Amino acid sequence: MTIDQTGSPPTAGHQFPVGSDAFPHRHLLGIAGLQPWEILFLLKEAEQWVDLNRQSSKHVDRLDGLTVINAFFENSTRTLLSFEIAGKRMGADVVNMHAAQSSVKKGETLIDTAVTLNAMRADAIVIRHASSGAVRLIADKVDCPVLNAGDGSHEHPTQALLDALTIQRRKGDISGLTVTICGDVMHSRVARSNIYCLTTLGAKVRVCAPTSLLPASLDRMNVEAFSNFEQALDGADVVMMLRLQNERMNGDFIPSPREFHHLYGLTRERLALAKPDALVMHPGPMNRGVEISSDVADDLERSAITEQVEMGVAVRMACLDVLTRRSRGVEGWS
Amino acid sequence: MTIDQTGSPPTAGHQFPVGSDAFPHRHLLGIAGLQPWEILFLLKEAEQWVDLNRQSSKHVDRLDGLTVINAFFENSTRTLLSFEIAGKRMGADVVNMHAAQSSVKKGETLIDTAVTLNAMRADAIVIRHASSGAVRLIADKVDCPVLNAGDGSHEHPTQALLDALTIQRRKGDISGLTVTICGDVMHSRVARSNIYCLTTLGAKVRVCAPTSLLPASLDRMNVEAFSNFEQALDGADVVMMLRLQNERMNGDFIPSPREFHHLYGLTRERLALAKPDALVMHPGPMNRGVEISSDVADDLERSAITEQVEMGVAVRMACLDVLTRRSRGVEGWS
Amino acid sequence: MTIDQTGSPPTAGHQFPVGSDAFPHRHLLGIAGLQPWEILFLLKEAEQWVDLNRQSSKHVDRLDGLTVINAFFENSTRTLLSFEIAGKRMGADVVNMHAAQSSVKKGETLIDTAVTLNAMRADAIVIRHASSGAVRLIADKVDCPVLNAGDGSHEHPTQALLDALTIQRRKGDISGLTVTICGDVMHSRVARSNIYCLTTLGAKVRVCAPTSLLPASLDRMNVEAFSNFEQALDGADVVMMLRLQNERMNGDFIPSPREFHHLYGLTRERLALAKPDALVMHPGPMNRGVEISSDVADDLERSAITEQVEMGVAVRMACLDVLTRRSRGVEGWS
Repeated sequence: MTIDQTGSPPTAGHQFPVGSDAFPHRHLLGIAGLQPWEILFLLKEAEQWVDLNRQSSKHVDRLDGLTVINAFFENSTRTLLSFEIAGKRMGADVVNMHAAQSSVKKGETLIDTAVTLNAMRADAIVIRHASSGAVRLIADKVDCPVLNAGDGSHEHPTQALLDALTIQRRKGDISGLTVTICGDVMHSRVARSNIYCLTTLGAKVRVCAPTSLLPASLDRMNVEAFSNFEQALDGADVVMMLRLQNERMNGDFIPSPREFHHLYGLTRERLALAKPDALVMHPGPMNRGVEISSDVADDLERSAITEQVEMGVAVRMACLDVLTRRSRGVEGWS
Repeated sequence: MTIDQTGSPPTAGHQFPVGSDAFPHRHLLGIAGLQPWEILFLLKEAEQWVDLNRQSSKHVDRLDGLTVINAFFENSTRTLLSFEIAGKRMGADVVNMHAAQSSVKKGETLIDTAVTLNAMRADAIVIRHASSGAVRLIADKVDCPVLNAGDGSHEHPTQALLDALTIQRRKGDISGLTVTICGDVMHSRVARSNIYCLTTLGAKVRVCAPTSLLPASLDRMNVEAFSNFEQALDGADVVMMLRLQNERMNGDFIPSPREFHHLYGLTRERLALAKPDALVMHPGPMNRGVEISSDVADDLERSAITEQVEMGVAVRMACLDVLTRRSRGVEGWS
Repeated sequence: MTIDQTGSPPTAGHQFPVGSDAFPHRHLLGIAGLQPWEILFLLKEAEQWVDLNRQSSKHVDRLDGLTVINAFFENSTRTLLSFEIAGKRMGADVVNMHAAQSSVKKGETLIDTAVTLNAMRADAIVIRHASSGAVRLIADKVDCPVLNAGDGSHEHPTQALLDALTIQRRKGDISGLTVTICGDVMHSRVARSNIYCLTTLGAKVRVCAPTSLLPASLDRMNVEAFSNFEQALDGADVVMMLRLQNERMNGDFIPSPREFHHLYGLTRERLALAKPDALVMHPGPMNRGVEISSDVADDLERSAITEQVEMGVAVRMACLDVLTRRSRGVEGWS
């Protein structure tokens, strides 16, 4: 039984759409365009995998017989590891294509690579690429679901989902929360996906960065922009710090890591401006002493940073499961 | 029941050899020396894996309990991926050794590496190496089947098998077809293996290249050599373009990629010189606009390029299956 | 039923400790500190995996459902391969983290990496790192067993275990044997772990190196030091050659590879000084003609070098099995 999906998100007492109506998309290319109940459906699905992963024996046969290809055209350690573990725990045959070292470059050749992976009869392809939009380009050429594991400064949807799951488990309903995202908002696909995800779920999102790192597109994104970190922190429920990319620290955008820390580093003093139980998050890997001080990162009461990693595997398992239901012929998923 | 294997290949009405007589070789080091019915046996075996790979659930337990090592001493993306998928889909424990980055070099050390892989009790070893003959050197030192995934400018037998399977499925009997192979014939292990395979199966093979890239050894290979592409294409059933290696384009062999395309690029106009339904093939990855123009590559009616990739996984599954039958104690395979 | 573990090692007629008393350690960080019966227990456990690996079908479900992460912060080909095969043959979901190429460096970030792997709910983590002590640092931060696959010049415990298993299978009881270890003793984690292992098991250990490569700490290690190789070889039961690291051959420690071979290379003539049936060992990969001459390395009667590789997989299977018994809830392992 399904409900009208063009209306408001289902609230308590309402019914979620079921079967493929719950998540009618073929791919997971981004959070933009997802309905709130679609996001909530993925989060709900992830819960079972959180539970499984906490067992000693943590392998299921859900994806038995399927081939999952992780095609990473950009180096990555933890996201690749997280997807690889997710696929293997669910029983899939998982292969990694380390395209960053290969001769694969871009443009036409990228499409040829997509066609090649497709011809090998992949059942799901996970892609990371340095260029915004490259993942969609590939998705348009293949017959199987494509999961975006980060493309340029565009989107990193599973990061936003794992962040939302982390917040939801710690704070309950995300709707109504105030979330402050601080750092290189302009270049961050993590920020972009999180903004889409959190605003869609009804959170009030503030972004904070030096004016040189505040994108002009923020006007269209339903967020409040700050360049003063103290103001951005005032009364926040969640403080999400972004990783400062080393390549930004050369003086063009950021005078120096030390100066950045002075103005935008999350210290214990600054954290006191947020709500007393405000949650601290970071997508990792952290530059300790730059965007976040170590005592804040390591405060188990406040920091959810390692939980984010844990939720990452669970969310990716949920996405692989849900997106392959059609091809696996799961009832209700046509 | 077996037949005389020293005679002619079995034709319609004849009986194939069965059991290990069907493929009495311990390794797959090259196509040279294979009997036509041995090649046809591998192609016939591959058909079941083509079918399996087109299912949603595409994993069998044929190689359960076996360890397959992919030892790639030369970088490769798609051939490694194809072999890795083949092994995993058949249930083997598959491990990749990326020796190109390791300290492994050659000569004695290569033998020591072979002995090491053997001591780890591999059940099949797949090897790619930049030196012609390196794979045989390893095969002589190990107890398990060795599959050549490309050695120097010597052979790349699974490529020839997948090409033959592709042609057979599109054109029926290979015997009697005219196949034109164009490109850097001199340095190409793909060309060499295909020449052996296609002539053994009774095709009439033409090779075409600038005279600087036509090897002297062609005289012994039962092919017709051309340096004029138009003449080589006349009435061909299959046009197989080779990848132009970037390292050849520096002026020593090829004046420039543009000049090569002008004389030897497969364009729609040139393709019209072949038979009206001539098949276009390329082992990939393509240099679009150099050895092949994009409109030809992307013509689904004529181009079999993505099918070649698909057949590659199936052919490799067949080879892994057949070569491990002795050690798995399959009846009739002593 | 257990015995007093503070006493002497159990001899014939004595009873081994059973259950978790047989190996009460959470991690395998080194050989130093292990009791003789704990070492012997691991060797005894490895025997079953030697047998399994010699079967055609060599896969068990012992570690089904578990996730093993091989986190290699230093390049390695054979040790990684050995651990990967060990984990996969036992049914674990195995993932490799190639951290040598990643942005991971050290110090705090190393701990953050450890916390990340832990959050992904690894059931065992195998670590190689260029810095002595880095593996312990990680072990202190995670909830699962950590296996040291070599850290700096500190320890390489599974190498010592595989060497001990090789000796035991060829020579019987290790107690009372004279073992000569020759090479760069100062920088070698292999030497260090072997010294701990062999002296703990009652062997008489001699080390031999140029005085520039004899560490001062030898006094505390219960070994006899030689700089004359002929004297060190006199009457030895086992001759264990170390790999000469290329970075030592630049003149600071070793005048030249040729000079090293002249004074410390194991030749057939020198080997004649040892016992007539003395065993020759080398952890690999060998520098033939430097620390060992080819005729000695390839003498199947005397050289156990390939057996060492074979025992390596079995020993690592035993370690993974034993260390995960607690989390798997094996009876007696609390």
